Amino acid sequence: MDILKGSGETETFDRDKFCRSLRLAGAPDRVVRKVCVLVEQELRPNASTEQIEKKTVRYLAKEDLLLAARYRLRSAIMELGPAGFFFEEYVAAILREYGYKTQVGTIMKGHCLSHEIDILAEKENVHHIIELKYHNRRGFKTDVQVAMYSYARFLDITAAHKKFEEKKHVAWVVTNTKFTKSAITYATCMNIQLLGWQYPKSGSLEQLIEGKSLYPVTVLSSANRFVKEQFAKQNLMFVRDLLQYSLSDLQKKFGFHPSLANRLLQETYTLV
Amino acid sequence: MDILKGSGETETFDRDKFCRSLRLAGAPDRVVRKVCVLVEQELRPNASTEQIEKKTVRYLAKEDLLLAARYRLRSAIMELGPAGFFFEEYVAAILREYGYKTQVGTIMKGHCLSHEIDILAEKENVHHIIELKYHNRRGFKTDVQVAMYSYARFLDITAAHKKFEEKKHVAWVVTNTKFTKSAITYATCMNIQLLGWQYPKSGSLEQLIEGKSLYPVTVLSSANRFVKEQFAKQNLMFVRDLLQYSLSDLQKKFGFHPSLANRLLQETYTLV
Repeated sequence: MDILKGSGETETFDRDKFCRSLRLAGAPDRVVRKVCVLVEQELRPNASTEQIEKKTVRYLAKEDLLLAARYRLRSAIMELGPAGFFFEEYVAAILREYGYKTQVGTIMKGHCLSHEIDILAEKENVHHIIELKYHNRRGFKTDVQVAMYSYARFLDITAAHKKFEEKKHVAWVVTNTKFTKSAITYATCMNIQLLGWQYPKSGSLEQLIEGKSLYPVTVLSSANRFVKEQFAKQNLMFVRDLLQYSLSDLQKKFGFHPSLANRLLQETYTLV
Repeated sequence: MDILKGSGETETFDRDKFCRSLRLAGAPDRVVRKVCVLVEQELRPNASTEQIEKKTVRYLAKEDLLLAARYRLRSAIMELGPAGFFFEEYVAAILREYGYKTQVGTIMKGHCLSHEIDILAEKENVHHIIELKYHNRRGFKTDVQVAMYSYARFLDITAAHKKFEEKKHVAWVVTNTKFTKSAITYATCMNIQLLGWQYPKSGSLEQLIEGKSLYPVTVLSSANRFVKEQFAKQNLMFVRDLLQYSLSDLQKKFGFHPSLANRLLQETYTLV
């Protein structure tokens, strides 16, 4: 049966790939088998990847909320932008949790030009010059052109800085998507650090997030559009930031209905 | 009065800028004054740049067909793509007229990756590695990211080639649009050759075209869609390529109506 990918192309539904995606999110065999069967039974021709994911998440949430969140994480990150959050702030916050000092949107003088750096991160006397590539729709991979552009910018900056300081500089490209093969080949060859979806194998973006429960609020299945907007206004980015609020705080501060506030908190306690 | 730019923004109609564009195309003062007044009188609110250009070209063509062609050249190049021509073939053909040997779409091995080079041009033992950036809609400028990406690719190629050959290599970016200021600053600083609309001041794309009458067939005001498609099928790219055909050739080979064939040839004789 044909399904509709985020890129607009159709492809044949691949049962094995779908079941594997459940296993990747950490579902035990019993749940994989169950959800695989349930979703496949309900599959309609030309269903979109998003529709299939919604169904899957609903079934997963019945089994295990954390599992559902991990499965939804990729889409949740894609919703950050439309929900009013900045991806660079989210990534900077993640890096800080891993011991980096960060600055967002700094201007750095280069040899030819001044450059606005998405994130300048520092750890153990090494400067990490980080270029972000954020997509808020499915179906994109971050290509070698981004790695090359970032490298040329990195060269321009280090050409101006090497003269007067001894700090080591490292170029990064961070994305919420996958990288193309050539992007990976080029970056590996030129010592550019890549961080993205399922890359690198150890220490990928989703692993960094899961490792310290840094789920974005957009992952909460009980958070509707209004909730996400309220959170964005208060710059409340991580699910765990909700822990500081009591049930009545959520009702007073954000104007949430008691039952909604209750569901949000229940989910929060499960996830973090 | 507000007019609609190609980028989708509106801006106030700038009479001086408009009259200057006529002068830039080479119109004598008498014609500039006349056409300026005529077009301004007919201007309607929110007219698009394209509509204004159409009117202008109609008035200019009454005065001088060559003038009208020069005025239309920018749009004519933007029509190459939609009309079925490849911009890289057009640019390569122009370069050949200026003494370069050219290859389109060659693969070159780099240090990290193999790269598909839009045009590889050679002249006096120098290799020119040319990256093209083609826009078939108005309202774009070619940005510094393109220059940087091209430079990183150039570095990767020369890193692999320097080892075993002595030829000089030069990086180029060629576009049918203007360049942003930072693209120009960066390219000048890194010795990247830029060729685009109104750049460089001496030897810009339109000057190279006009200098040897290399007008594309899309500039012909009597060429409708059908004509352009027929030309594209025969890979007939320059107006002057039409010189090899007689009136009856055009009727037989392309199936044009005698009066259309006649108009096309009249225009051709004026332009080349």
